[in-house]
Amino acid sequence: MANIVYIAASLDGFIARPDGSLDWLTGLPDDGGDYGFGDFIKRIDAIVMGRKTFETVLGFGEWPYEKPVFVLSESLKELPPELEGRASVVGGDLVALVSRLKAQGYVNLYIDGGRTIQSFLARNLIDELILTRVSVLLGEGIPLFGKLPGDLPLKLRKVEMLNEHLSQSYYTR
Amino acid sequence: MANIVYIAASLDGFIARPDGSLDWLTGLPDDGGDYGFGDFIKRIDAIVMGRKTFETVLGFGEWPYEKPVFVLSESLKELPPELEGRASVVGGDLVALVSRLKAQGYVNLYIDGGRTIQSFLARNLIDELILTRVSVLLGEGIPLFGKLPGDLPLKLRKVEMLNEHLSQSYYTR
Repeated sequence: MANIVYIAASLDGFIARPDGSLDWLTGLPDDGGDYGFGDFIKRIDAIVMGRKTFETVLGFGEWPYEKPVFVLSESLKELPPELEGRASVVGGDLVALVSRLKAQGYVNLYIDGGRTIQSFLARNLIDELILTRVSVLLGEGIPLFGKLPGDLPLKLRKVEMLNEHLSQSYYTR
Repeated sequence: MANIVYIAASLDGFIARPDGSLDWLTGLPDDGGDYGFGDFIKRIDAIVMGRKTFETVLGFGEWPYEKPVFVLSESLKELPPELEGRASVVGGDLVALVSRLKAQGYVNLYIDGGRTIQSFLARNLIDELILTRVSVLLGEGIPLFGKLPGDLPLKLRKVEMLNEHLSQSYYTR
């Protein structure tokens, strides 16, 4: 049973430019690697993401996920009808939400989106963090990490150089 | 000829807590490793640091450096007399300063201190970055990186897991 983050960030800790763009990440030369994403996706039972990330994903056109998606939002009331059975809106306290999802059989959760990740970290609800670092300083953007009620020590389990643009670190709580 | 940063930062990019304290770093279990610092110090000819870092180092009591130290400051006029021949105040434009130091034979410079590192990065004057990441999220503190005039792409040359608390990445410009 694990809540897992799999995300890429710049060396200075941003997951997107101020306007949300990812050109610094998507523009990297394609070396054919999937950087463990396929294996990671196989492990998870569902995806929990924030409204902003959800809207970004909607903007891609085709819905990319085969696993159920839970969109964390207090404002969204309904999702586009074509997503019925694939995505639903959830809210309320995160601890209660996680318990509810696990009780429904969604045991390993992919926690995605900047604010959502920060909220989970602030409640000490992240069990694993797979962080891909891009070898670029952006200077500004949307930060991966935010304020916390206190120190959150993690354990580094593995770190790997993928190529000169990317390293990947694997942390557990 | 290289300007080199060798520094430790938390996973969320802080080099110290808001009050400057380093307990999250100095309190790590000592595994006897020097994490390449000895080899790094042998390579450098002088140290360039900001006033705040200088004052922190003064607070340690014993002066720890065998290499000449140049303290970047517009406000400091003189240094404690016991540091004569070991440290001096420098200022002015960073590009001119680096040229001047290199002309004096200080070819490989250790660039230290948060604001100093940020100023050098903003002028694209850092050639190598040896970054030790501590496996802890602090939530707040003094950031390693700051604003930049534009993207600063680096090349990852090596990354190594030192222990479960530390990884070390080596980047070049």
